[in-house]
Amino acid sequence: MGLTRIGLAGLAVMGQNLALNIAEKGFPISVYNRTTSKVDETVERAKLEGNLPVYGFHDPASFVHSIQKPRVIIMLVKAGAPVDQTIATLSTHMEKGDCIIDGGNEWYENTERREKAMAELGLLYLGMGVSGGEEGARHGPSLMPGGSYEAYKNIEDILLKVAAQVPDSGPCVTYIGKGGSGNFVKMIHNGIEYGDMQLIAEAYDVLKSVGNLSNDELQQVFSEWNKGELLSFLIEITSDIFGIKDDKGEGYLVDKVLDKTGMKGTGKWTVQQAAELSVAAPTIAASLDSRFLSGLKEERVEAAKVFKSGGFGDILSSQPVDKAKLVEDVRQALYASKICSYAQGMNLIRAKSMEKGWDLKLGELARIWKGGCIIRAIFLDRIKKAYDRNPELPNLLVDPEFAMEILDRQSAWRRVICLAINAGISTPGMSASLAYFDTYRRERVPANLVQAQRDYFGAHTYERIDMPGSFHTEWFKIAKQSKILGHL
Amino acid sequence: MGLTRIGLAGLAVMGQNLALNIAEKGFPISVYNRTTSKVDETVERAKLEGNLPVYGFHDPASFVHSIQKPRVIIMLVKAGAPVDQTIATLSTHMEKGDCIIDGGNEWYENTERREKAMAELGLLYLGMGVSGGEEGARHGPSLMPGGSYEAYKNIEDILLKVAAQVPDSGPCVTYIGKGGSGNFVKMIHNGIEYGDMQLIAEAYDVLKSVGNLSNDELQQVFSEWNKGELLSFLIEITSDIFGIKDDKGEGYLVDKVLDKTGMKGTGKWTVQQAAELSVAAPTIAASLDSRFLSGLKEERVEAAKVFKSGGFGDILSSQPVDKAKLVEDVRQALYASKICSYAQGMNLIRAKSMEKGWDLKLGELARIWKGGCIIRAIFLDRIKKAYDRNPELPNLLVDPEFAMEILDRQSAWRRVICLAINAGISTPGMSASLAYFDTYRRERVPANLVQAQRDYFGAHTYERIDMPGSFHTEWFKIAKQSKILGHL
Repeated sequence: MGLTRIGLAGLAVMGQNLALNIAEKGFPISVYNRTTSKVDETVERAKLEGNLPVYGFHDPASFVHSIQKPRVIIMLVKAGAPVDQTIATLSTHMEKGDCIIDGGNEWYENTERREKAMAELGLLYLGMGVSGGEEGARHGPSLMPGGSYEAYKNIEDILLKVAAQVPDSGPCVTYIGKGGSGNFVKMIHNGIEYGDMQLIAEAYDVLKSVGNLSNDELQQVFSEWNKGELLSFLIEITSDIFGIKDDKGEGYLVDKVLDKTGMKGTGKWTVQQAAELSVAAPTIAASLDSRFLSGLKEERVEAAKVFKSGGFGDILSSQPVDKAKLVEDVRQALYASKICSYAQGMNLIRAKSMEKGWDLKLGELARIWKGGCIIRAIFLDRIKKAYDRNPELPNLLVDPEFAMEILDRQSAWRRVICLAINAGISTPGMSASLAYFDTYRRERVPANLVQAQRDYFGAHTYERIDMPGSFHTEWFKIAKQSKILGHL
Repeated sequence: MGLTRIGLAGLAVMGQNLALNIAEKGFPISVYNRTTSKVDETVERAKLEGNLPVYGFHDPASFVHSIQKPRVIIMLVKAGAPVDQTIATLSTHMEKGDCIIDGGNEWYENTERREKAMAELGLLYLGMGVSGGEEGARHGPSLMPGGSYEAYKNIEDILLKVAAQVPDSGPCVTYIGKGGSGNFVKMIHNGIEYGDMQLIAEAYDVLKSVGNLSNDELQQVFSEWNKGELLSFLIEITSDIFGIKDDKGEGYLVDKVLDKTGMKGTGKWTVQQAAELSVAAPTIAASLDSRFLSGLKEERVEAAKVFKSGGFGDILSSQPVDKAKLVEDVRQALYASKICSYAQGMNLIRAKSMEKGWDLKLGELARIWKGGCIIRAIFLDRIKKAYDRNPELPNLLVDPEFAMEILDRQSAWRRVICLAINAGISTPGMSASLAYFDTYRRERVPANLVQAQRDYFGAHTYERIDMPGSFHTEWFKIAKQSKILGHL
C-alpha cells in the first residue's frame, strides 16, 4: 500500500466511528490503539461497512510512518494523563511540520501547554472539540478545531467533508481560533447542552406532575414541539424516549430509569469559568446543581419522609388544569428560558475571547452547531442571524427579534413558574432564566443596598447615581449619633 | 524595653486595629510595615487610644528580634504575592519554632504550600481567617485559625482574649483544623455573607418596589425584624442605612448609591469550590451572579429601553397590597431562604472536610460565627444546636426544628416569590433557595429523563429504580423500528 492521508489513535467507539467516517469520505486512514484488539476490530468494521480504506497498525512507529507528510494524527483518548502519554508515544516518531490533534473534551489550558511543548519539537497541535456522540462521529459531527492555523489548513479538506452538512449553511466546522479556543468553545457547547437538558426535564416535570400527562401524551407533545421553533435533536430524542416500553417489565422505560444524572467535567468547568470571567450563567449553573442534587437520591428519600410527616406531600396542589393551555404555556416558557441559557453561553465565549484575544465569531459558532452536535436546532439559525444583524450585540436578549419573542412569551413563562412553585415542584432552570431576564432588563436593581452595606462594614466605598467619583460614608457613626439624638 | 509577646506586620486599617486590640488585651506587641509612616501612625494611635503597649520598628530585623521566642508574627497584607514577599522578608530573621500567621483572605492552597515551605525551614505556619471588618479587628473579631496546632497553642491565650466574646458561648475562636482549613472556612463564611446580603437586598426590593414602602418604613421594618429570629448584624446595619440622609442633596443616601456591587475573590472561590465538590450552592451562586449583573449598569439601562419600547415597564404590576401582610410574608421568605443558604454553606465545608480529612466541627463553626463577624446572628445558635442534636446531620433542612420552621413559612415564601415574578422584579436568591428546598425534599426528580437522554446519545448507561445494575438501551434503534412499524 502507499501512504495514508491521516492517522487516528484511540479506538474506543468515538475513535472507531470517526475513523470510519473519514475513510468513507475517501481519505485513506491509518489507525492505532494501545490495546491492539481494538485495531483489528476497527479494520474488521471497515470491511463490513463497505470496504473502507482503514489500515491498522499494532505498533506506534509503523503507524506513524504509514502516513504521508506532513503527518496529521487525531487522538481520541481520555482527557488528561492519557493524552500526554499518547503524545509522548507518537511524537517520538514524528517529524518537523507533523501535527497532532486532540479530539477529546480536554481542559483548554492543557491544550495550550501541549501546543507550546509541541512547538519546541517543531510539531503542530490542535485541540478539536468533537460533538455529536457516537452517531455524530460516524455520520457527521460538529467540529471545533482550535490551535495552529497551519495545521488546520493541512486537513481542512478532510474536516469539511467529515463534518455534518447542513443545507444552506454548509459543513459544521470552522477554524475556531488560536490556542485552546476549540476546547473552550466545545466546553461551553456542553454547558449549553446541560442547560437544554435541564429545561426539557423541567418541562417534562410540570407536564407530568402538574398536568398529569401520560407518556403517550408526552411523546405526542414533544413530537409536536419538534415541528416548530423548538425543533432540535434533544426534543426529538425526548419524544422518542417517552415512546419506549420497558423490556424488563410493565410500562414505559423512562419511568424505570433511576433519577440520578451522571456527569463528566465540562459542565463543572463551564460554571467555574463563568465565575472566573464574572459572567452570570445561572441557567447552566442550575442544571449542574440539579445533577448534583439528583445524585443525593438516598438523602432525598429521607428528606421527603421528614416533610411528609409534617403533612407535606410531594406535590402540593394538583387542581385540574387545562392540558392544552398548560402544554402551550410550558412550550413558551421552555423557549424563553432557552434564549436566556444561550445568551449566557454566548457571553461566556465572548468574555473569554476578549480575555485571550481569540477574536471568536459568535455567529459562526452558532452556524457550526446547527448540525452534527447534541444541541443542533433550528433555534441556532436565529442566533446566527442575531449576530449577523449586530456582531457587537451585548446580549441575545436585546436582539430585536429575541426581545419580541420574549415579550410574546413572558406571561406564559411567569404562569408556568408560579404554577410549579405553588405545586411544590422545582423549576430551577426556568426560574434562574426568568430571574436573569428580569435582572438584566432592569435599569435599577437593589445592588445599591448591598454596596451601602459593604461601605458600612468594610469601607469599600460606593459610586453615586448623580455625580462622578468614589465616596465613603461613616454610616455607623451617623446612625449612632442619630440614635443618641433620638433617645434624648 | 523587654521583649514583646507577639508581632504584627502589615499596618493598613485592619492590621492597625488588630494590633491595638491585642495590645489592649494586655499583650505587648511589636509592629512593622514596609512603608514606615504606617508604623509611626500605629504607635501614635496606640498612645491616643490609652497608652497601649505597641512598639514600632522600621526594619524587619529589629522587628523580629524584639519578639520573645518562640516568636509569633501575624501578617495582614494583601493575599497572593505580597504575602510571599512578607514571608521572605521576615523568615530570614526568624528561628526554628517561630511562627508566621497569615490573617488575610488567602486561597487555602496557597496557605498549604507556604506551610510546607516554612516547615522545611523549621518554622510553623497558620492561615487565620479574620472576620468583622475594621470594627471587628479593633474590638473583637471572629477568628478562624488553621494549620499548625502547635503554633495555635502558642498563642491560644492571646486569641481567646482578642476574639469577640459572646455570653454563654465564649470567645469567637477555635482551632479550625489542619492545612488551609482556616482560610477555607473563612471563604465559605464570606460566601454565606454574599447570600445573606443578596437575600436582604431582595427583601428590600420587594418591599420597596411592590409594597411601595418608604425609607422610613423600611428602617422601621428592619429595626422590628432585628428584634426577632432575624436578629443579626446585617439586618441591624440595613436598618441604619435606611435612616441616613444624603449629605450632598435631598432625600436619603441609599437612593443615591449607584446600584453596582463590587466584590473581592472569596465569593467567586466559593462558587467554584461548590462545583469542584459537587455540592449545590445555588443561593450563594445567585448572589454572585447578581453582583456580576449589577456591574452591567450601562447594558441594563439599554436593555430597559428595549423592553420599555415593547410596552414593558420596569415594574409590571403594582396593584395595592396589604403592607403589613407583605412585610410579614417577606420576613418569612427571607428566613426560609436563609436556612437554605446556610445549609449550602455548611455542606460545602463538610464536603471539603471529608475530602481533605480535616475533621471540621460544623456546630463549633456556627458557635465562633455568633459574634465578631459580618454574619453574626442569633440564627447561628439554632445551627449550632442542630449539629449538637445530630453531628451527622446531612442537611440543615432536615433538622426537625428547621424543617418545622420551613413548613410554617413555606406558604409565605411561595407567595412572595410569585408576587415578585408577576411584578417582574427578580428574586434570584429566594427563588434559588426555594428550588433548592423543593428539589432536596423530593423523592423523585425528573433526572430520569436527563439520564435517559445521556444514554440515548452518549451510551452513558443508567440505573433502574427496581433492580440493581447498570443498563444501556439502544433507544435510537428501538424508536426507529417502531416509527417504521407505525408507518406500515
